[in-house]
This record gives sequence, structure tokens and C-alpha cells, in this order.
Amino acid sequence: MKETITKQLRTVQQASREIITLTDETINHLLLALADSIPVHYDAILQANQKDIERMNPADPMVDRLLLNTSRLDAIAADIRNVASLSSPLNAVLEARVLPNGLNLKKVTVPIGVIGIIYEARPNVTFDVFALCLKSGNATVLKGGSDAMYSNIAIVELIHSVLKEHGINPDTIYLLPAEREAAAVMLNAVGYIDMIIPRGSQKLIDFVRDNAKVPVIETGAGIVHTYFDKSGDLDLGQKIVFNAKTRRPSVCNALDTLVIHQSRLDDLAELVKPLQQKEVVLFADEAAYTKLEASYPTALLHRAEPEHFGTEFLSLKMSVKTVSSLEEALEHIAHYSSRHSEAIIADDPAAKELFLKRVDAAVVYANTSTAFTDGAQFGLGAEIGISTQKLHARGPMALKELTTYKWIIEGTGQTRP
Amino acid sequence: MKETITKQLRTVQQASREIITLTDETINHLLLALADSIPVHYDAILQANQKDIERMNPADPMVDRLLLNTSRLDAIAADIRNVASLSSPLNAVLEARVLPNGLNLKKVTVPIGVIGIIYEARPNVTFDVFALCLKSGNATVLKGGSDAMYSNIAIVELIHSVLKEHGINPDTIYLLPAEREAAAVMLNAVGYIDMIIPRGSQKLIDFVRDNAKVPVIETGAGIVHTYFDKSGDLDLGQKIVFNAKTRRPSVCNALDTLVIHQSRLDDLAELVKPLQQKEVVLFADEAAYTKLEASYPTALLHRAEPEHFGTEFLSLKMSVKTVSSLEEALEHIAHYSSRHSEAIIADDPAAKELFLKRVDAAVVYANTSTAFTDGAQFGLGAEIGISTQKLHARGPMALKELTTYKWIIEGTGQTRP
Repeated sequence: MKETITKQLRTVQQASREIITLTDETINHLLLALADSIPVHYDAILQANQKDIERMNPADPMVDRLLLNTSRLDAIAADIRNVASLSSPLNAVLEARVLPNGLNLKKVTVPIGVIGIIYEARPNVTFDVFALCLKSGNATVLKGGSDAMYSNIAIVELIHSVLKEHGINPDTIYLLPAEREAAAVMLNAVGYIDMIIPRGSQKLIDFVRDNAKVPVIETGAGIVHTYFDKSGDLDLGQKIVFNAKTRRPSVCNALDTLVIHQSRLDDLAELVKPLQQKEVVLFADEAAYTKLEASYPTALLHRAEPEHFGTEFLSLKMSVKTVSSLEEALEHIAHYSSRHSEAIIADDPAAKELFLKRVDAAVVYANTSTAFTDGAQFGLGAEIGISTQKLHARGPMALKELTTYKWIIEGTGQTRP
Repeated sequence: MKETITKQLRTVQQASREIITLTDETINHLLLALADSIPVHYDAILQANQKDIERMNPADPMVDRLLLNTSRLDAIAADIRNVASLSSPLNAVLEARVLPNGLNLKKVTVPIGVIGIIYEARPNVTFDVFALCLKSGNATVLKGGSDAMYSNIAIVELIHSVLKEHGINPDTIYLLPAEREAAAVMLNAVGYIDMIIPRGSQKLIDFVRDNAKVPVIETGAGIVHTYFDKSGDLDLGQKIVFNAKTRRPSVCNALDTLVIHQSRLDDLAELVKPLQQKEVVLFADEAAYTKLEASYPTALLHRAEPEHFGTEFLSLKMSVKTVSSLEEALEHIAHYSSRHSEAIIADDPAAKELFLKRVDAAVVYANTSTAFTDGAQFGLGAEIGISTQKLHARGPMALKELTTYKWIIEGTGQTRP
């Protein structure tokens, strides 16, 4: 298998060198044609999707992630049109200067080359990733979950046929075999794949980071805190905590731990009161528990155990930690944060400033909900993932983050003394 | 050993959180004090260096890399002063906007955190790296070669004492034990070290990439081509090839393979003529060999074997490849390049443009020597290495490349609908 895949990766690399010369106009034309072709091929895609669904246990929550229908396909087509409408991230001059010896130096954005995505059972990712990668001039290597195998094959067939119709090398996108073995080849394809983004569970991300030789951008996991300061506004805090915890508890920017200054413990019951409506389960430390006992529903209130801190709940659960100072809050967050999104609720400008400066995370917030960590919310137009590491890209990744740069130097015979 | 090191790494991480609040003024003050302290401690450093030298075989070429003396130490002190004179790369606002909902969003440069450097027998790196990392607000973890152990210990002791005098946490820099086992702990220190840069041989770089779980920036290896086009100017080409090959053959930007268009083979003898002065050994393909036989010294001329292409010679050796078209030149380069520095010599604007667009390398040149790939030459003021990968930083890496960014979002109680 390794040999067959490596041979294919060579053709993908070749294709990546060809698409570098496509104009943005050609790319947009292709993307719009792809969007238009989706309704024409509803049947083929949905039949393939049905084959995947039939292999699942109907009670598996994954079924919903895997399922395609015409309205989902229409939403996907709309997303592809949206990508076509965005400005090209390529050929932007990041720096330009003429050196004293007359050399003309420019730093210009270029495609990364070949981008590998390894993901689980969401066939919409297949379309999304292709659109973002092509728009940014990159070839795409996909390793989807075996649960979505038939769906992914049908989708990539459709993309291949549209590429061919437009005279673009179809090797621009390559779907790896669904077998696990293919993932190992991909993770070791130094020289063929320039970057790998895992999209899925923490387990998948850990596996990729621990086994890849190709550079990896870790995305996803958010262990998110909101600190209610001594100077925090109660009404504002109530709204923010409610929004950050309950808007979409299953996403990575959802609140996991409320950190509260001990001088505001008397306000805690009021602060978390709205969470009862959504039956949010609280794991409160001793000081917080004592303050909540009288008012928060007993069935929803538990004493916090160590495992409730530093946990991404992805559900209607939240831990509560009491601290005696802003410094202690910073320490708690530094210790448990996954460096995704962290917030402070405070009126005191000094407390806000210190928090925003000291907290090491992709996105730090003052007096607002962490639910805003999202490429579209940031005005980036799209999103391929939220990076929780520090190299290359941090926070929401969109088209710009799918480019690198090169230095272009033009001279008239200069040599270095 | 793993436990002791991990404990130390925790204190380094703590220090990295403290130095984030230092002003640029304080950092510069510290760096100048360190530069001033070097002549005061000549004896201690040179005695330690002598201990390292005495352990070496005097014939080993490494001795020269390892050797310190007062003039080398003075040059190091001057470099540290230079770093202090550069603008701070921190707190630069890369983007700023107010979202429709009133949220104030800023993308601001911040330190990466803890930077690990793994290097071989150059004790000057110890000072250089510390200066660049501190200037960019980062803590430093160093793994030096065991050959330089005593030198490195003495240097880090001096840095520690200057840090302490200035009330800055000395854990800002940590020298790992010289044992190999320490390297393994470092490469796996996910959560403690944010980025690792290997500096040294290709073997070291490969080892680090293949074994690290912490993100790695590969630097160094340059398999460098210069393509002499159908339209190339012979005088200009002669100067450029001579400069790129002979200026400093041991560095990564030195020319390895001259690629020549077959229609210019009659000019080849003239093109490479100056290389004789430096006794450059040529490995020429058949077509080129035939043209060189009559004029290039026989002792210096060999028929190229496959291993002479895609080789970083790091010495006065060069291969010559004949191609029948620009397209074939691009293919040869795409196949053998290490994506460091690549050049074209051409008068034809279309050939130049195509080459600059299509060649995938950190730096692409037209009509000039690849010897310019260097942070100081680019006006970056300093250099921690030359990245040959595409994520985060490409080409010369200086202060800016030792930063990441975070998004800072300030609101007035906004929640996401």
C-alpha cells in the first residue's frame, strides 16, 4: 500500500505545481461550477451516503454527523460559493524593499503546496476542505474516516469530474484509501505533504501529533475558562456565562470552568442562576458549593473532584473554582488551559489589562462571551479549524493561514562581497 | 533524569510567564549589561573552553568551531549589543477592527513562550540564542553538544548571574544536561516547550524532526541550484556562479548545481572558467563534460554520477546539469531542491517570471547570487537560522519569527446569538 500511495502523492505534488499558475478567476469559476453540480448529483451522493448510514448502528450519535440530505448539500454548495466570493490570499506583498546594493526584495504569499487533512465521519469536510485549499492554491490529500467511505468516494468523484471538465489536473485532490494503514503513510510523507491538519476528537489529534513527521497544526480542543473578577459586573457576567456555556455546549469555545474571586462568592448563586433553565450540571469547589447549596437545584449540583478541572466537557456541565486573587486565577488558567479561548469579566481596567497580557491563549476576551471564537465571527469568511498551537497560525484558520510566503529577489548581477 | 528535567522545564515555563511583562527597555538594559560582563569574565569562559578543547583530537575540524578567544568573545558581545539595538518585535498590532456588534478585535504579536534549541559544538550559539529569545520575550531551553559542555556551562552561569543582578528570574534560560537522554526528554516536552529549532548537521535535523512531538522548525540544509537560461548574460553569469560557489563554500546558501540550457553549452567553458582559480571540482553530465574537456583542468573535471545531483557539497565541488528547456530545469530543481535558495540567470522577462513563480523555495533569485540568503543581508538585523520548511517561517528567521500572535477581544457584555 505504501508504494501505491507514494506514487499517488507524487502525482498530487505535480498537480500542486501546476495549480500555482491558475488565476483566481479560474479557481472561482471552478468552485462555482462545483457548487452548481451538487444539486445535479444529489442522487449519486445521497445513495452513497445511504450505504454508509446503513453500515452504522442507528443509535450511534455519529449517524447525525454522517448524514447528508438535500438541504445539507445545499448548505455545502452555499459555503463553496462563499469561498469563491472571498479575496484570494495569494500574491499579497507582505514586505518590499530595495537593499543598499540595489537588490529588489519582496516577501510574497504563496500556496503551502500539498495540505493533508485527516478527519472523522463528516463528509461535508470533504467539500469544505477542497474549496478552501483550491482557493488558496493548494492541493489536497484527504484521509476520511472509514464510516464515511462511500460518501467521500462519491464526493471526490464529483470533484474530479468537475476539475476534468475545466481542464484542471484532477490529481489536485486525492482521497486516501479508508484503511488505517493509509494514515501512517500520510503522516510520514515528508517531502510530499507540507502540512497536516487533524480534524476531530482529541484522541485523533494526539495520535497525529505523536506519529507525524510532516508538520502538524493541532486544532480543536478547548478547555475554556471565564474569570469573574472582584470588579466584575453581575448582570453582564450572568449573560456572558449563560451564553458561553449553553449556546452550543458541544463546540470547542464553550465554557468549561467558571473561576470566581472569593470576594464575589455572595453573588455566585445569582451569577449562575440562568444555567438552571438549561439544566447545567455544576461541579463546585467547597467554597462555591456552600454558596450554591441553598438555591441551585440539588440534582444539578455536585462537589468538584480534581478531574472536573482541565476537562473539556462538550456538554451541559461546568466546574466552578474559587480563587483569592487575580494572580491565583491566572495560575489556575495557566495550569489547566488548552490555550484556546479565555475570558475575564471585570470593570477594573488594570485587572483587564493584566489578564489580557498574561493569559497565553489563541483568543483572550474581556467582558464578552468566548462563543465568538470562530472564523466567520472574526470576519475571516471561512474556517478550516481553530489552531491551539503557536506556530504558523493561532486561533481561527482561514485562507490566509493556508498560505506561506517566499522571498523573491531580483538583481542586476549583484554578488556578495 | 526525565523527572528532574521536567521539574526544571516547569520553572522555565513559569519564568516565561514572568518575562512577558518586562519592558523592551529592561530587556535592552540586561542585554547591554551581559555584553559588558563578557570581557570581565574572559578568564572563566576561556578556561572552561580550554577544558573542552583539551578533550578533543587536535586534528578534528570541530576544534575551530568550538574554540573561543578574546576576539571571538568581543564579536559575540558586539552581536548582543546589536540585538539590543533592534526594535522589539512584540506588541505589534497586525490587524485591528471593530466588529458590527461593537466587539473590539486586535491581533497582536506576543512571545512564543519557551523555545528549545538543540545544537552542536558552537558555544557562541549559547549567547546568540539567549539574546534573540530574550529580546523577543521568550524563555530558552538549550541542549548543546557534549563537546562544548564546559563552555556552555560557564556561559550560562554568566548569563544567570547577570539576570539575577537585574532582578530577572534566572530560569529564563536553562541548559539541559549534556547527555543524549536529555535531548529525548526535550523533544517530547509537549506543553512545556513551544518550538524546537535544531541547528547543525542534516543528521541532527533529521533526528529532531523524526523524534520530536514538540513542533520543530527545520533549518539549514541547502541544495542550491542556479539555472543559466537560453537568454542568460554570460558576464553576469560568470560573476554570479563564481560568487555563489566560492564565497563561502561551507555555508548553506552556496551553489551546488549549475543547470544550463543546452543552447548555451558553447558558453559553458567561459561560464565556469573563474572557478579554476579556486580549484573547484566539477561533476558534469555527458553533454557538459564534452564541452569542458578541452579547457577545464582535467584533475578538477569528472563525469557526474547520480549522487552528484541533490547533494549539498559544503565544499569546493559543483555539479553541472544540461537541460533542453526551462521546463526541464524547473523539473530538475523541483526534484532535487531542498527549497532553500534557487536562482535563474536570464534576460528574458518571461523566463524570469515563470522561474520566480514556479520554483518552490524560501528564496528565489533572478540575476544575482544565492549568497544573499542571510538574515543580516535581508536587513532583519540578526538570524537564528534559515527555515527550509513552510510553516510559521520561511528563509532567514530573526526576531519577528520568534513571536506568535494572540487575538485580544474587548467587549461590553456582547453574547453570540
